[in-house]
Amino acid sequence: MALIVQKYGGTSVSDAERIRAVAQHVAQTRHNGHEVVVVVSAMGKFTDDLIVLAEQISPNNPDREMDMLLTAGERISMALVSMALSTVGVESASFTGSQAGIITDTTHRRAKILEMRPDRIREALDDGLVPVVAGFQGVSTERDITTLGRGGSDVTAVALAAALKADVCEIYTDVTGVFSADPRVAPKARQLTTVSFDEMMEIAATGGRVLMLRSVEFARRHNVPIHVRSSFTWEPGTWIVEEDPTMEEAIVSAITDDTSEAKITVAGVPDRPGVAATLFRELANNGINVDMIVQNTSLHNVTDISFTVAKIELEAAMTACQKVQQEIGAVTVTSDDQIGRVTIVGAGMKSSPGVTALMFETLYNNGINIEMISTSSIRISCVLHADKVGDAVRHLHSAFGLDAE
Amino acid sequence: MALIVQKYGGTSVSDAERIRAVAQHVAQTRHNGHEVVVVVSAMGKFTDDLIVLAEQISPNNPDREMDMLLTAGERISMALVSMALSTVGVESASFTGSQAGIITDTTHRRAKILEMRPDRIREALDDGLVPVVAGFQGVSTERDITTLGRGGSDVTAVALAAALKADVCEIYTDVTGVFSADPRVAPKARQLTTVSFDEMMEIAATGGRVLMLRSVEFARRHNVPIHVRSSFTWEPGTWIVEEDPTMEEAIVSAITDDTSEAKITVAGVPDRPGVAATLFRELANNGINVDMIVQNTSLHNVTDISFTVAKIELEAAMTACQKVQQEIGAVTVTSDDQIGRVTIVGAGMKSSPGVTALMFETLYNNGINIEMISTSSIRISCVLHADKVGDAVRHLHSAFGLDAE
Repeated sequence: MALIVQKYGGTSVSDAERIRAVAQHVAQTRHNGHEVVVVVSAMGKFTDDLIVLAEQISPNNPDREMDMLLTAGERISMALVSMALSTVGVESASFTGSQAGIITDTTHRRAKILEMRPDRIREALDDGLVPVVAGFQGVSTERDITTLGRGGSDVTAVALAAALKADVCEIYTDVTGVFSADPRVAPKARQLTTVSFDEMMEIAATGGRVLMLRSVEFARRHNVPIHVRSSFTWEPGTWIVEEDPTMEEAIVSAITDDTSEAKITVAGVPDRPGVAATLFRELANNGINVDMIVQNTSLHNVTDISFTVAKIELEAAMTACQKVQQEIGAVTVTSDDQIGRVTIVGAGMKSSPGVTALMFETLYNNGINIEMISTSSIRISCVLHADKVGDAVRHLHSAFGLDAE
Repeated sequence: MALIVQKYGGTSVSDAERIRAVAQHVAQTRHNGHEVVVVVSAMGKFTDDLIVLAEQISPNNPDREMDMLLTAGERISMALVSMALSTVGVESASFTGSQAGIITDTTHRRAKILEMRPDRIREALDDGLVPVVAGFQGVSTERDITTLGRGGSDVTAVALAAALKADVCEIYTDVTGVFSADPRVAPKARQLTTVSFDEMMEIAATGGRVLMLRSVEFARRHNVPIHVRSSFTWEPGTWIVEEDPTMEEAIVSAITDDTSEAKITVAGVPDRPGVAATLFRELANNGINVDMIVQNTSLHNVTDISFTVAKIELEAAMTACQKVQQEIGAVTVTSDDQIGRVTIVGAGMKSSPGVTALMFETLYNNGINIEMISTSSIRISCVLHADKVGDAVRHLHSAFGLDAE
């Protein structure tokens, strides 16, 4: 008998029919002898509708009240799921984030979990019930309702799985698992059976849309195996687990792409200490998240700094750069929003020389120019012209032997 | 400076525009130097929509989960009202029933308030905020979310007003106040300026739709003045207050009507002790609420018992009566769903002989037959044929001098 946390996303509970299908699956899991804790998101686009409603009141609403508003969606879906369980003979009880003991800090809209006190969930399990928990929400140390930000329901599920020492956290969604590349970009993309936490973190960080980086980090820290699978096919999907040193690893597991960012280049900067600190402090003070940063080799004591930011933050980032341009002595500040990033991820990469060379050769042989490069021990990212991203993903997918037969 | 609890019903918060109007009114009340606590219902028909959704899952859902579901509506409207207050410069904070310290028993769907612990509401007031509280909901002694049943938001408002020792509980709705009769039935009906708690209880119990009996009872017990008024005109409405013995009272204040009930007659029953007990115990065991009961004068030791029940419970009530018919020795059990009840209510009635006679004469002179009669010290109800109800209300309204000039 295993303890399984099952998280159902918005598309999995979008209407009464889908909710009944979820209940059937939970009943089947129980029938197979397992204990189940269910975590739910709001139905379909319900939370988006609430945001529209709030914007009709005002474009700028207090975060505390936005959290109070946005948590209504999970409350509705968890009650409906619990009702549906009752119709298939499974006794259950629903719990808000607060009732489930999810204690967060006081940062509304993107609260961090400080502590898990899932006493009522444990009691419910001991009483033979299936607890149905609202994802995405908690209660702050000031006793106010908080939300966990984007991907928050996954975080709830992983955190509960960790606190309850569950055997697995199953994330049900509208795709069948994690793929070797986005199938819309690379038609020959294959579904992966297993991915390591480290690989999944790189995939999530560089454009994989299945899981947010945050929940993968949480799962890795607490060593909670995640199983990403579909609530439409109910077939086994992709397992995200701790790297097994005895296993032979794929050199490259996945190719990701991301065209949501723009590039800023601060050129002709005197190569002296403190320049980068001044620049990125100013960006941070304006709440701008910087992703890739590349500083070119210094020539004649003058250097260029390039970095990427989300396109929607480009204007604010440019303003911040122009503000410090004189102070840091930069000659020009330019931007380019016609870029994309292609990344190869693989835990086996660190012990395989030649991966970098093969990546660059493949791009070169296909006439694709590289604008920026950034690497980690298990990832290589290249920034390219946006038009070339699709081609790059397909050629790299072939070159690294990932194409499905 | 007064402390005012303002309760806004579903039509008062039905969309962003109406919510902004509510915020303006709260701001104006604060500007006039008063402290304000707001209690809100769910927007328009939102709760009805949730019930439809639940019925799509199953016709019979666990009450605990229905409560979890149904409380989502107030959570949405209270957050939106709080946001709207912020746009007009009024600092506020929203509170769920649980956060507002509304402690109930564990009877889901129609919980009773056991205790009020509005510490956080008091703190918010002391901090200069306008607390916005979800109506209709509380938290049980078992820490589960409960709802207070029909008219529950009014109960929340009155209970908070009592606990906070507010000067008045204002109930904002889509009518301008309490009328001397239903204006749709009696076009000459007048709006009443003041009604005593006792009168309002009789009005609520016999067909007045503005307030539920329960909240009036609560207000009377705690002596909380209620002011029923419109959130569309914002004009002063009707005050419901403790009877002032120094005031000269209207003999008759209002005529109410109710056509939602049916009549059952259990005829030819031996007039011996225990018969009525057996009959009404059986009805109670089947969860049927009996309203008016009349037992005719016994003749030859045989009596007839007539009573009214809600039309929707008629079938179940007939079944219950037929079940005990033999045991109590009744000759026939018949029903009539073409009846209506007309009631005259007035605190001055108890000291005015002749009111009963005037009522019966008025009906007789207009060719209206009386099928059942029931009285209290400040009320007389007559059951008539359903077709005659409108005529009866209009003639009585005239006869008792209530017609507007």
